[in-house]
Amino acid sequence: MKRVNVNLGSRSYPIFIGAGISVRTGRIVAGLDIGTDAYVITNPLIQKKYGAALAASLRKAGLSVRFKNIADTEQSKSLSTAAAVLKDLAAFDKRKHIFIVALGGGVVGDLAGFVAAVYKRGIPYIQMPTTLLAQVDSSIGGKTAVDLPEGKNLVGAFYQPRAVITDVALLKSLHARQLRQGLAEVIKYGLIRDRQLFSYIENNMRRILSHDQAALTHIVERCSRIKAGIVSRDEREKKSLRTLLNFGHTIGHAIEAACDYCDYGHGEAVALGMLVAADISRQMRMLGEKAQERITRLIKAAGLPIKLRGVSLQKIISIHYRDKKFMAGKNRFVLLQAIGKAKVVSNVSLLIIQQAIKGSGTFNC
Amino acid sequence: MKRVNVNLGSRSYPIFIGAGISVRTGRIVAGLDIGTDAYVITNPLIQKKYGAALAASLRKAGLSVRFKNIADTEQSKSLSTAAAVLKDLAAFDKRKHIFIVALGGGVVGDLAGFVAAVYKRGIPYIQMPTTLLAQVDSSIGGKTAVDLPEGKNLVGAFYQPRAVITDVALLKSLHARQLRQGLAEVIKYGLIRDRQLFSYIENNMRRILSHDQAALTHIVERCSRIKAGIVSRDEREKKSLRTLLNFGHTIGHAIEAACDYCDYGHGEAVALGMLVAADISRQMRMLGEKAQERITRLIKAAGLPIKLRGVSLQKIISIHYRDKKFMAGKNRFVLLQAIGKAKVVSNVSLLIIQQAIKGSGTFNC
Repeated sequence: MKRVNVNLGSRSYPIFIGAGISVRTGRIVAGLDIGTDAYVITNPLIQKKYGAALAASLRKAGLSVRFKNIADTEQSKSLSTAAAVLKDLAAFDKRKHIFIVALGGGVVGDLAGFVAAVYKRGIPYIQMPTTLLAQVDSSIGGKTAVDLPEGKNLVGAFYQPRAVITDVALLKSLHARQLRQGLAEVIKYGLIRDRQLFSYIENNMRRILSHDQAALTHIVERCSRIKAGIVSRDEREKKSLRTLLNFGHTIGHAIEAACDYCDYGHGEAVALGMLVAADISRQMRMLGEKAQERITRLIKAAGLPIKLRGVSLQKIISIHYRDKKFMAGKNRFVLLQAIGKAKVVSNVSLLIIQQAIKGSGTFNC
Repeated sequence: MKRVNVNLGSRSYPIFIGAGISVRTGRIVAGLDIGTDAYVITNPLIQKKYGAALAASLRKAGLSVRFKNIADTEQSKSLSTAAAVLKDLAAFDKRKHIFIVALGGGVVGDLAGFVAAVYKRGIPYIQMPTTLLAQVDSSIGGKTAVDLPEGKNLVGAFYQPRAVITDVALLKSLHARQLRQGLAEVIKYGLIRDRQLFSYIENNMRRILSHDQAALTHIVERCSRIKAGIVSRDEREKKSLRTLLNFGHTIGHAIEAACDYCDYGHGEAVALGMLVAADISRQMRMLGEKAQERITRLIKAAGLPIKLRGVSLQKIISIHYRDKKFMAGKNRFVLLQAIGKAKVVSNVSLLIIQQAIKGSGTFNC
């Protein structure tokens, strides 16, 4: 079992990574002394697959367990689902020594973290990510949120978990497409901070896509270290450091929103967003053509889309202007100086952005 | 204009206190550099009284203004009202330099603070309390919350405002009963921390109840200093210091909940709760009988209830056991050692609690 620390003073916490470590959850959680009653927020599919084993592990450690299922869709990341969960939680909360376990992907983690942040002004919670996307990204760093019709993640809190338990064995049951969504984020880490990781993915794509446990453990640990390091130094995105993690996400979010979160998954939208960002970087002469080609090649090898289809260009641009990162009238992009090196650039010209988006796809209008 | 500081490092903020200072709001807010677009959360009555003057002051300082009214009832402190406000806020939020002004009493302040805490994971907000209760208590310290059917304030966040602007002239329009509600909290400060304040209230009751501006400024400043000092040293109620502010509230909340928040106002319930706590203190030989009588006399002089009526004793006791402050099976009470001196005591015997509640009222069952 590997251990990576997020260092935030009194709010520091460990990330445990390994294949098959979820059976130790009870012992790990009991050691944290965060409560006696586990309220596990998950979805029906995940509960069916892993619920019994998790409950057994928690009960063996002397903890009580209650499961709360939410539907496995982005629509669950809403204030109304949060309200329903909070009411159920308050009804269950008798012995007053409760903590939350978020067992699932990004939707479960973001919602459960938000519920933990606001219930009684904050109770402890544990992240147990079950998708590659959640393992390398959303489970670490305490960004919790739900969506509004007006935009994703508009309501939330910075609220750190007390531990992250990352069992790569849980990834076995992911469909190929789900694994690829996560791989987009893994490629992102390589691009912004770690050219060795980028090369590792290039050289081990087949092992990764066939769920090789050692390869998955390697990339998950590597990404967790990068994210933990960034969060430790810039928890609330006050410096531009944490902003680097948004590489590919500015346009990625706009793509997701423009197609009403339906045609592209998050990782696929991010993959397209990274290609747009790479193209902007090249147009601005920050990045060479060869590097850009290498990026496109890897994204293609991962089975991720490299051409944007069926979305209105105008809609992407206008949604992009509503992005949270878009401060006081200035746009901000994370761009690449090389594979493994990123920087935040303000006031990128709209012409270059449009050019990059146009170049990346075929549009209806 | 008096100034009291809440000292919390990078989250420090000033409380401005005076009669008629709200006309300076625009200048004060502009000086804080927290945004250009004021989103004022208030209720229809308050907007009618003070909205135009506030808007003029803000606009004169170059700020845009939008009002959002919520109904003036405890029912507005709900997740559904929060959701409606958040959606309206997101629709209004175009220029991305928005901040919230909470213009109203405790309901507006708690709800607006919660909305500010969770919108985009936290945007700046200003408290402009318009009731005595809010001026001396809820506007200071960053405890924001909404209620659940299962209990008050169960959903919320610790989230500090960027300034509190306390204009005692706004209290002129309060009904006598509303002023008395606030006076209960003022008496509380005297009881837990400041016997001179207690004596001042004894000696100036008539001036206070007739809205004498100097007397109101004096007591509001005194209370603000006490609360600011406590919050500065124990923001998140980790030590027992901030817990002292709950004097009278443990049973007070139970009384409010037992009568479905209808028969007694918050201050009235707290007054009764203080009498119960004083009686527990006397039964435990921490407080003398003369001091207890003096407390009862002052509460009576303030026009606050000294006899509990029309509530089920059993209901109060059972609701009390669900109190947030009731940790891991142990009850916790703030009790008095003298007028001006309080301490937290755990595991008070149920018999003594029942005896104190019984002694304080007449019960249906």
